[in-house]
Amino acid sequence: MSSALDTNMRFKFSILALLLEVIIIVLFGIFVEYKNSVATLYPFFQDVQVMIFIGFGFLMTFLKKYGFSSVGINMLIAAFGLQWGTLMQGFWHMERGKICVDIRRMINADFSTATALISFGAVLGKTSPVQMLILTILEITIFACNEHLVTEILQATDVGASMTIHVFGAYFGLAVTLVLYRPGLKNKHENEESTYHSDIFAMIGTLFLWIFWPSFNSANVPEQTDRIRAVVNTYYSLAACTVVTFALSSLLDQRGKFSIILIQNATLAGGVAIGTCADLSIHPFAAMCIGSIAGIISVLGFHFLTPLLASKLNIHDTCGVHNLHGLPGILGGITGIVVAAIKEEVRQDDSFTPGMQAAALGSSLGIALAGGALTGGILKLPFLGQASDQNCFDDSVYWEVPEKEKTHEIHSNNHDEHTRFEATM
Amino acid sequence: MSSALDTNMRFKFSILALLLEVIIIVLFGIFVEYKNSVATLYPFFQDVQVMIFIGFGFLMTFLKKYGFSSVGINMLIAAFGLQWGTLMQGFWHMERGKICVDIRRMINADFSTATALISFGAVLGKTSPVQMLILTILEITIFACNEHLVTEILQATDVGASMTIHVFGAYFGLAVTLVLYRPGLKNKHENEESTYHSDIFAMIGTLFLWIFWPSFNSANVPEQTDRIRAVVNTYYSLAACTVVTFALSSLLDQRGKFSIILIQNATLAGGVAIGTCADLSIHPFAAMCIGSIAGIISVLGFHFLTPLLASKLNIHDTCGVHNLHGLPGILGGITGIVVAAIKEEVRQDDSFTPGMQAAALGSSLGIALAGGALTGGILKLPFLGQASDQNCFDDSVYWEVPEKEKTHEIHSNNHDEHTRFEATM
Amino acid sequence: MSSALDTNMRFKFSILALLLEVIIIVLFGIFVEYKNSVATLYPFFQDVQVMIFIGFGFLMTFLKKYGFSSVGINMLIAAFGLQWGTLMQGFWHMERGKICVDIRRMINADFSTATALISFGAVLGKTSPVQMLILTILEITIFACNEHLVTEILQATDVGASMTIHVFGAYFGLAVTLVLYRPGLKNKHENEESTYHSDIFAMIGTLFLWIFWPSFNSANVPEQTDRIRAVVNTYYSLAACTVVTFALSSLLDQRGKFSIILIQNATLAGGVAIGTCADLSIHPFAAMCIGSIAGIISVLGFHFLTPLLASKLNIHDTCGVHNLHGLPGILGGITGIVVAAIKEEVRQDDSFTPGMQAAALGSSLGIALAGGALTGGILKLPFLGQASDQNCFDDSVYWEVPEKEKTHEIHSNNHDEHTRFEATM
Repeated sequence: MSSALDTNMRFKFSILALLLEVIIIVLFGIFVEYKNSVATLYPFFQDVQVMIFIGFGFLMTFLKKYGFSSVGINMLIAAFGLQWGTLMQGFWHMERGKICVDIRRMINADFSTATALISFGAVLGKTSPVQMLILTILEITIFACNEHLVTEILQATDVGASMTIHVFGAYFGLAVTLVLYRPGLKNKHENEESTYHSDIFAMIGTLFLWIFWPSFNSANVPEQTDRIRAVVNTYYSLAACTVVTFALSSLLDQRGKFSIILIQNATLAGGVAIGTCADLSIHPFAAMCIGSIAGIISVLGFHFLTPLLASKLNIHDTCGVHNLHGLPGILGGITGIVVAAIKEEVRQDDSFTPGMQAAALGSSLGIALAGGALTGGILKLPFLGQASDQNCFDDSVYWEVPEKEKTHEIHSNNHDEHTRFEATM
Repeated sequence: MSSALDTNMRFKFSILALLLEVIIIVLFGIFVEYKNSVATLYPFFQDVQVMIFIGFGFLMTFLKKYGFSSVGINMLIAAFGLQWGTLMQGFWHMERGKICVDIRRMINADFSTATALISFGAVLGKTSPVQMLILTILEITIFACNEHLVTEILQATDVGASMTIHVFGAYFGLAVTLVLYRPGLKNKHENEESTYHSDIFAMIGTLFLWIFWPSFNSANVPEQTDRIRAVVNTYYSLAACTVVTFALSSLLDQRGKFSIILIQNATLAGGVAIGTCADLSIHPFAAMCIGSIAGIISVLGFHFLTPLLASKLNIHDTCGVHNLHGLPGILGGITGIVVAAIKEEVRQDDSFTPGMQAAALGSSLGIALAGGALTGGILKLPFLGQASDQNCFDDSVYWEVPEKEKTHEIHSNNHDEHTRFEATM
Repeated sequence: MSSALDTNMRFKFSILALLLEVIIIVLFGIFVEYKNSVATLYPFFQDVQVMIFIGFGFLMTFLKKYGFSSVGINMLIAAFGLQWGTLMQGFWHMERGKICVDIRRMINADFSTATALISFGAVLGKTSPVQMLILTILEITIFACNEHLVTEILQATDVGASMTIHVFGAYFGLAVTLVLYRPGLKNKHENEESTYHSDIFAMIGTLFLWIFWPSFNSANVPEQTDRIRAVVNTYYSLAACTVVTFALSSLLDQRGKFSIILIQNATLAGGVAIGTCADLSIHPFAAMCIGSIAGIISVLGFHFLTPLLASKLNIHDTCGVHNLHGLPGILGGITGIVVAAIKEEVRQDDSFTPGMQAAALGSSLGIALAGGALTGGILKLPFLGQASDQNCFDDSVYWEVPEKEKTHEIHSNNHDEHTRFEATM
């Protein structure tokens, strides 16, 4: 069968998407209602929205020929996922048989999409939009169950979601990408590169994530004093992480040069790692230590672990989500265990125990890996429109790409390898 | 007369702009005063600011050679228009002979510029900055009258301005572009195309509009519970619209490929269409139905109607504002009529009747068409610096464009020094 | 010694950065504590964050080969500076031996970094990251002293920091760039140019600065009514400034064409100039006059003064910070003196006198020039990794730049039809 046939998702995608939207609308009709609420959280909600749609979307635009998909499929996953997430999380919090929507529920709906977007980063360039819709449904469903387990049953602390979102999303995505492993991509694909301007586009994502991360970590804090503390801790954690990332990036390069990949990603690890303990009185200097360690772990992960995972374990992690979300998320989880063990005064709550925190981390990790493996198995079904190895990391498989550029690509068949590169600029 | 002479607006533009600014400052001196007010609406104001300056500006950067004008003239229209709008809307709401400015008035000043920016989308690439200043003055003046008619005299509901801004701005622009019709642009202009990166720039506009649309639709809602409801309805309407747009975009393409133009524009139709009824208890699932229908209408408009309007009716709509603002705005207006007819309990107000809603829609449409035709007639005056057909959609007529690129275009048939420049793109 | 050796900052940069981070964390451990506070200022804080990281960062991306440094080193300076600024400003405001951090302190920490970012604009492309770290430490330290002098000792009015941030940052940077003067850059460097897309990236910075400037000028106003007034004045000042800038930009060009450099920069002068008096009842029309004059001064500065400073005084100001921050800041300071002299009713405070305002302006200017000269002297030390003249304005000295582009540069010596396409990018 030709590759053109394989990836034509005209009916598969459109029918699946429309069907899902109809189902969601019916479920909303049955279950969802407005809830009267105040607007206190509205600025936090809007900050989170910017992170989800601009932050995650642009962070992934670094690939030279995959910008439409990065920002476009990110938007699709988020817009679809927030509806599905409203239902999945809502089912665990029904009030008299109804899901009552207010700003807090919408923030959480946005949060639930973050897991799918993190996993999207792991498989970026290697999956079809049909596969991403299915992944979004499965991941958000499983996420909602794990989140309920962690916050309601284990009653663990995880206000900035280091475990429930970052660890979960990263390891879910890694399990998927492992199951979907393609030997043909073992060697670096010629499209899996950035250009100067695609890297600058990616910095738009990085910076908006950085700026609004304090809102992400504090939006779910119920009490205002604690919420401000979450903002303060996240702010200083990120700042320390950024300085450390720059330092290590230079140190690890023989010529002392900075790596834009590290600046785009590892500078954010401080926001992930402080998540679990963000609202606790751990002291700003402790927040900065956590941020610094997160930066170190993340840089080392990108530098040593990612190539190793790819070559030894067949885990190809396109955006390096393991280093940005996975490892710093685990650090966040461990921090929670340690703080619960040594600092009893930080929270009066009896439920804040090392055991429960460890259970929460284990549950997030385990359920993510199992859920990701299961999802990967389903996504492996042959009729889901996956691109051939050769066409990976290339928008033109699923998108109409500007005419001039294609014309150009055709005309330019016989001047050197650089023409393809120019065509994608 | 040479085209260079025609488009040199050195004295025309600068004298007109300075004169207008002097007049505005004098009028501010006579009429405008501060009003004590609270900061509740400040975050909504800032969200609207982002939509006006970044959202509208970047949405139009998709043209490969018209980015400076898109984002620059957008800024000019907005900065000029918000001053003029403060006066025009203010004259209808004087308090003891004074226009009292607070955050609400500034939000409405921003809103008034949105009409001119929507119309700018219809004529994009075909008008001079002088023409755009004149259009802005006339359109905002007429808009303020229609808005007064709709909200004060007819007392119609239109909280998110589906009719007063979107229908008005779109049909005003379409009337202008019809009157300014150029047979020479009948065939697709070689500059009327995007490049890969210009399309990604445009997505910055799309996403910020998408993210902050709930603020746009709720900023003018007086009561807080209703304001949150407007946020909820807009959020879910946009989400449903986005999924449907992706589905139809794939369905309408033979190879099942997504169109970036549709993703840039039709995904926003849900925000427009929910505008009129955003604050009413129509139920979230109804908001999603409205969003879905808006997506369908907008995609079909881009796919079938825009080429037809251009070829049969001589209406060349550069950005497709008819599909993003016009048709979804009419849908919003019709929704208002239907809701007024069938759901009496949603608003106790006696004034919320199908008749008044229909009158508001008719008035917005009719006044826009008449006002646009009149404005188009004035803009047709030969000395306003319009570019020749050949130079349409090209920044270099009204902007200094980076030297290297021009040099490059001329010199570049035979190597070397330009390569460094290309490498940095 | 080869240039490769000179600019390899592998150990210099990383050890300095890590050492500074450790010192800062220790100082935080000793001196910093949380302060209970309310979230009223949180939206203002987030707006300022966007200005610092996105606004300043992207504004400087106009150089064709210096985008990574503009946005990356901007991030480094800001992340490092906000920690250092917390300490330096905090030492002047200790409560029982502790620096108590809340949203207001974080806003001020962000503000303190703005001075270093403005100075970065003056030396952009000519300094190493090591030099920038040292500059940041020195400048923020001196800034905190001058700010204490101006606001606490002189008790001058400067709510939007026209003097303490804009005048200070600009003249500090100019003094540094004068001391670091390189005769080899006398003639325009071939890298000191923009490309079409780099200019559009810069507009992202401009627009976010423009949009959120009202938050910058009002964040430090203690009373809410005054805060809204600062927002109103800044909004209209910027709007008037923008229209005037467009008018003059066209007027000063023989062909009447707009200059994107002026639109990127001079449109913001209105925000700078209104800073000192932003919260006073000066009347909106006066704000618009100040904005208009700021636009005129800034445009004339770019057009006539910058080339003169470079050729006659050996002051090479890469971004033209003198025109965006220096001159409009002085205008702001003078406005403060005039308002204090003629309008006694605007502030009851006895301390608001022309003399004190003049002393504040003189102090900001004098301390900046002296501090900048001193800093420049230190930065001149030969082992700080400064690039050779030839390698100025080029990311590849301090950054790994995408491989393909370098390859491309080598291969692309002899083809044709693709060049036009590239030229339009």
